[in-house]
Amino acid sequence: MIKNVKIISIEKKTVSDGYLEIDGKIIKKVNKGEPPIETLNQVSRVIDGKGKWLLPGFVNTHTHVGMNLLRGYSDELPLQRWLQEKMWPFEAKLDRASVAAARRLALVEMLKSGTTTFLEMYHLFMDDFAEEIQDVGIRATLMRSMIGLCPTEEQEAKLKEAKEFALNWHQKAEGRIQTMLAPHAPYTCPPNFIKRIVEEATALQLPVHMHLAETKKEVDDHINEYGLHPVHHLDELGVLKEVDWLFAHGVFLEDEHLEVLQSAKSVAISHNPISNLKLGSGIAAVSKWQQYDLNICLGTDSVASNNTLDMVEEMRMAALIHKGIERDPTVVTSIDALHMATLNGSKALQFEGVKGIKEGAEADFVLINGNQAHLQPESQLFSHLVYALNSQDVTDVYVQGVALMENKQLLTLDEEKIIYEANHEFRQVMSRL
Amino acid sequence: MIKNVKIISIEKKTVSDGYLEIDGKIIKKVNKGEPPIETLNQVSRVIDGKGKWLLPGFVNTHTHVGMNLLRGYSDELPLQRWLQEKMWPFEAKLDRASVAAARRLALVEMLKSGTTTFLEMYHLFMDDFAEEIQDVGIRATLMRSMIGLCPTEEQEAKLKEAKEFALNWHQKAEGRIQTMLAPHAPYTCPPNFIKRIVEEATALQLPVHMHLAETKKEVDDHINEYGLHPVHHLDELGVLKEVDWLFAHGVFLEDEHLEVLQSAKSVAISHNPISNLKLGSGIAAVSKWQQYDLNICLGTDSVASNNTLDMVEEMRMAALIHKGIERDPTVVTSIDALHMATLNGSKALQFEGVKGIKEGAEADFVLINGNQAHLQPESQLFSHLVYALNSQDVTDVYVQGVALMENKQLLTLDEEKIIYEANHEFRQVMSRL
Repeated sequence: MIKNVKIISIEKKTVSDGYLEIDGKIIKKVNKGEPPIETLNQVSRVIDGKGKWLLPGFVNTHTHVGMNLLRGYSDELPLQRWLQEKMWPFEAKLDRASVAAARRLALVEMLKSGTTTFLEMYHLFMDDFAEEIQDVGIRATLMRSMIGLCPTEEQEAKLKEAKEFALNWHQKAEGRIQTMLAPHAPYTCPPNFIKRIVEEATALQLPVHMHLAETKKEVDDHINEYGLHPVHHLDELGVLKEVDWLFAHGVFLEDEHLEVLQSAKSVAISHNPISNLKLGSGIAAVSKWQQYDLNICLGTDSVASNNTLDMVEEMRMAALIHKGIERDPTVVTSIDALHMATLNGSKALQFEGVKGIKEGAEADFVLINGNQAHLQPESQLFSHLVYALNSQDVTDVYVQGVALMENKQLLTLDEEKIIYEANHEFRQVMSRL
Repeated sequence: MIKNVKIISIEKKTVSDGYLEIDGKIIKKVNKGEPPIETLNQVSRVIDGKGKWLLPGFVNTHTHVGMNLLRGYSDELPLQRWLQEKMWPFEAKLDRASVAAARRLALVEMLKSGTTTFLEMYHLFMDDFAEEIQDVGIRATLMRSMIGLCPTEEQEAKLKEAKEFALNWHQKAEGRIQTMLAPHAPYTCPPNFIKRIVEEATALQLPVHMHLAETKKEVDDHINEYGLHPVHHLDELGVLKEVDWLFAHGVFLEDEHLEVLQSAKSVAISHNPISNLKLGSGIAAVSKWQQYDLNICLGTDSVASNNTLDMVEEMRMAALIHKGIERDPTVVTSIDALHMATLNGSKALQFEGVKGIKEGAEADFVLINGNQAHLQPESQLFSHLVYALNSQDVTDVYVQGVALMENKQLLTLDEEKIIYEANHEFRQVMSRL
């Protein structure tokens, strides 16, 4: 039980001084005021939340945390040189130990900044990672990413690995792990391979995650090669109506593409504004997306292009940038941004039980220290949560009712050791370059 | 003396493990490695900076901290309604106590996020504030802002007050206070009033600070009224060559205006990207500014339109947004952004002694706790400082060799009391509305 805390409901847009009772994984009771004495006597532990705000944890719907040692390794290069001269040569030297160190660093960073759920799209040592997530207690949607620029047998071998991983881990770790299939992108997966993947996803009833229309060049090349925008191309392949889709980026989507996506089975799009800015890709037309029946959520992308996994920064950017681009301060409101950063994300990642601070929902939430100068006056919480919050204001993180961070101390990860090992492994990779 | 610390030189783009010796207000010695034993024996105090980074403090070149109680008071309204229905009625109810509470809240927020110097442009109770700054130990450039939409006698009364304030406080508080004259903006000051102010500034050898070309509407209105863009108008008035100028915003400046500004006596422009986004004003063409001989610095504007005074956020936004707008990841580099956020700012605010981490410079600097997951691997500090730093990573703040914050504890301000009083005064203002 957490009492004496400001409970924030994003759906109802309310702030109540009250208490939260947790029973196992589930929020048993949310109420205003003081808890009854008899309830206080029954619960195993009572935490005083004085001065704190309680709200849903952040959900990062697109990242590649296996790349976490690449933070700052290269910035400010043109995209092709950045990939070919920097990212790919470094990634080619990653091994099991360095990927593990990268991921642990990311888990520390995510929990400390209030992320309770994330999506990992990567191709290396995913089983190791699923096991680690089982132990650490965070929530994740995992997938073995597939690039199809290779012979059919190799494609099929990747697909077999991706399927096995998905089947082995789907709904494991007390339901904290979900899986998807993940063709990397329309420009890296030939049409037949995309069709094969969606065929398998349909059979397994798994959603599909894919990069989509991230750069102008990629879209132009696609039109040159296939005569179609990637969205029209996917539509022509007949794959959009077969499965639930989660696309990342969507920087180059116009009304005609959004209409097609809206008519698909179900489509979520992960808006990654900071990565799109930093790589010089551009700015997605999110206020246009909002006019369609699409689930808009947020992702950081990897730290190679962000350079953090900080969902507070991502949420603030989503709330700021469209106002400036459209010269209209009324678009993408703070409430929109909060939904994107939390509830829309857990829906996109298919965690239907994670549905906010309400009775019967799974108990995933964070506490924030509201007693700070940059969060005053204390009367405008919804504004402060988006426009003034600092991710380091997060003091406590709970997933399925279990504390993973208390008073800024991680309970299931050894932060000091992880930082040491990350630097050690970084130097090891550099020595192999 | 601070030893065993990573010393960051922004000008030289170097990171050295070494020590810093302070003598009074001044950096006496900066050197690599361990300090000599005889020096260690001479100094009055030795601080171990293990795991920390030492760099110049941030300089916020445009804000109105007297408005700090308006954080989150109104967001996401069209500009005219925001001003007329929300900002101005609230400000009309401010009194001496509420403005003081607002400013103290801002001082806490600024010091805790690593700001060592700021510019305050405001019209209420400026003498009180100068006295407080003298006590608190932070560095500031202060001015009594003037709106000229009033009879000539009233204009002259404001100018008299502004002049007296400027003369009384110029280079006071051990040189930590500078002053300027500040006509609010070309659209709020008739031509003759601007000329009068610049005449006085010329006589007093003071720089002039003014809002410039912040919104499209303001520029269009100016062209309708005077037949000239505000920059051409100022040029025609003959005021640009008379004094040193510091303009804020400049969202609507094209090459023809930048050429005129470049030919003026000396021009600095305070880029305020977050405020410009949030109010829906637009995005200044900073990579174009860089092609001219102009001093580009950064400001947060007030928390009514930001909604923080966090220079780390401002610096990151400056480094990100132009890449996305221009679809070019190479523009406005991390080093550019660091210069804008620090050294360019102290130059624009006329603190010539604040010139970085070098011998003979005034000892204004911050320490950062580098032992955090989001700042690893530890080898890419210049990237991390801009793309990954969190303002709460700042642990220590020094101005003129005096510690104002140590291990995140403020030494010259009572944070808890200030937060309490800010909320009390906010409620008082609300009760008068």
